[in-house]
Amino acid sequence: MKLVDIGGEFGWIDRVRGAQAGASAGGLAVAIGDDAAVLDVPPGRQVVVTTDLMLEGTHFRREWSGFDDIGWKAAAVNLSDIAAMGADPTFAFISLAFGPDEQVEDLDALYRGLSDCLARHGARLAGGDTNRTNGGLVLNVAQLGTVPPGRAWTRAGGQIGDILLVTGALGDSAGGLALLTRFGAGEAARLSPHLVAAHRRPSPRLEAAWALQKAGVVRAAMDISDGLAGDLPKLCAASGCGARVSLAALPVSDALRDAQGLLSQPALDIALFGGEDFELLLAVAPADVDAARAAVASAGTTLTVIGELTPTGLTLLGPDGEARPFLRRGWDHFAP
Amino acid sequence: MKLVDIGGEFGWIDRVRGAQAGASAGGLAVAIGDDAAVLDVPPGRQVVVTTDLMLEGTHFRREWSGFDDIGWKAAAVNLSDIAAMGADPTFAFISLAFGPDEQVEDLDALYRGLSDCLARHGARLAGGDTNRTNGGLVLNVAQLGTVPPGRAWTRAGGQIGDILLVTGALGDSAGGLALLTRFGAGEAARLSPHLVAAHRRPSPRLEAAWALQKAGVVRAAMDISDGLAGDLPKLCAASGCGARVSLAALPVSDALRDAQGLLSQPALDIALFGGEDFELLLAVAPADVDAARAAVASAGTTLTVIGELTPTGLTLLGPDGEARPFLRRGWDHFAP
Repeated sequence: MKLVDIGGEFGWIDRVRGAQAGASAGGLAVAIGDDAAVLDVPPGRQVVVTTDLMLEGTHFRREWSGFDDIGWKAAAVNLSDIAAMGADPTFAFISLAFGPDEQVEDLDALYRGLSDCLARHGARLAGGDTNRTNGGLVLNVAQLGTVPPGRAWTRAGGQIGDILLVTGALGDSAGGLALLTRFGAGEAARLSPHLVAAHRRPSPRLEAAWALQKAGVVRAAMDISDGLAGDLPKLCAASGCGARVSLAALPVSDALRDAQGLLSQPALDIALFGGEDFELLLAVAPADVDAARAAVASAGTTLTVIGELTPTGLTLLGPDGEARPFLRRGWDHFAP
Repeated sequence: MKLVDIGGEFGWIDRVRGAQAGASAGGLAVAIGDDAAVLDVPPGRQVVVTTDLMLEGTHFRREWSGFDDIGWKAAAVNLSDIAAMGADPTFAFISLAFGPDEQVEDLDALYRGLSDCLARHGARLAGGDTNRTNGGLVLNVAQLGTVPPGRAWTRAGGQIGDILLVTGALGDSAGGLALLTRFGAGEAARLSPHLVAAHRRPSPRLEAAWALQKAGVVRAAMDISDGLAGDLPKLCAASGCGARVSLAALPVSDALRDAQGLLSQPALDIALFGGEDFELLLAVAPADVDAARAAVASAGTTLTVIGELTPTGLTLLGPDGEARPFLRRGWDHFAP
């Protein structure tokens, strides 16, 4: 079924509005279908805003991800930014462009994936924009959240001597992408369902963030979207310090270790340079590491010490204990 | 100069941050460069959110608009939605995708146009996302604003007997686009600088909206982005009533009248069906029309009665006074 069969763009907006009507309207004074949405902000909260664009070919391929996965991920990458601020997500706004030959059922699946990911984390769709393109799919999500005044985490709060920690495991998404690239969707999913799922449906670490926020132990935070090697330098630059990281300490899943032969690359390398982890990178005072670990454990996630903040420089300790320069080779869309 | 020459994506983000650093930081607790922005919302205000996607080829062509115009328009179309809610714009978030061969000077011009339009209306850039594409330019702006609780205008508040009004003139942007299409940028700008400027640099009607909000006379409002013939039915559907509009009453600029010969189309037709007017369509009680007109005049804009809301149906009175059906032929990206 094509869009013309349901009345074109305006029929589509009615369809989206209908699908969202059942969701809780708490805090949404004017919802989908007007010129803009109107939201209530609880008294004494600041508003957190992030936005992420996803382009077919650059960020996803429909051969490798279902439409529901694409929708899920568009929500997840934004929710991950909200988690990185220690905030609570509220409302999402999607801008979508697609060609005249897209099937309504596929677009429904995309919205379902998006809405599922939002609902699982207490957020919901509140508006958007629909457009036609002659190129590939284009999705932009703008995600709002709220946080008590002054409690948002930034990248700038790290202090020399702070312990660096990461949630979950690193490199799974990059490993999944490498399998998809090398073996195609069918074979990749057979070889490692875990890694492929990590690429298709990342889990924003909101529960861990909320537990950490409650514990009050985070000094600096960001989410790892461009690879640890690409992102850690940003946290250091913002905090005005250096870092020393132990390569052997990076948390790596069994699935990634199992796949390293297939990928002809050491798992720790993939963990260091891979992108789209959507794990949290945190700086915590040494005295608070146990409390941080307990908080994250209560949210069902692991938290691993990977190094510490130093006065200056970026050092990577190899498995032999020797210090190497920390190459910044994360995902830069326009790297030389 | 290409992006690689200024250090790739991260060099670009530093450049944008530097360019915005001079702007007032009122209400912006965490600005460009972190995972998300953090905003203060003044006590007792609701937050208004809108988002609009613009794609090269679909929404603009670089042969017809400069990069500064493209940036201006990306801001203006969103500010127009904020005006249509009777709200005050605050912070904008841009997602941008461009190819590796784009020139930094062109991207600077795009941001300059965007920032100029925002600054002129009391808003500013607070964050975004930068991506690479192998296709044309992609821009998404998410625009926030605030409004006193319960004071946002919607499309739903119209009542039978209300007078329909529009700000400014209709059809100028569509006329400009038609000239650009038919004659190319150089000749079109010579033939009618006014119409071409209306297409390239629309003026969001924020000042008029603020004056009307102060006067407290608006029952229903929307901005005309898909053409009056496409948008009026949406206001009627939301308000649960019909409308009667007089074709001869539609406000048409001298420039559009002058150009109708060149365009082989009556100016009133262009005013009825043209898109991207970004004028306000308002429903006002008959007793409040004079106050509404005075408010809009105080903001330097005209306000014209074009018809009224009726119990049902959509009727267009022709110049001969005869009633015709009101064809809905506005801009639908996916019209059959």
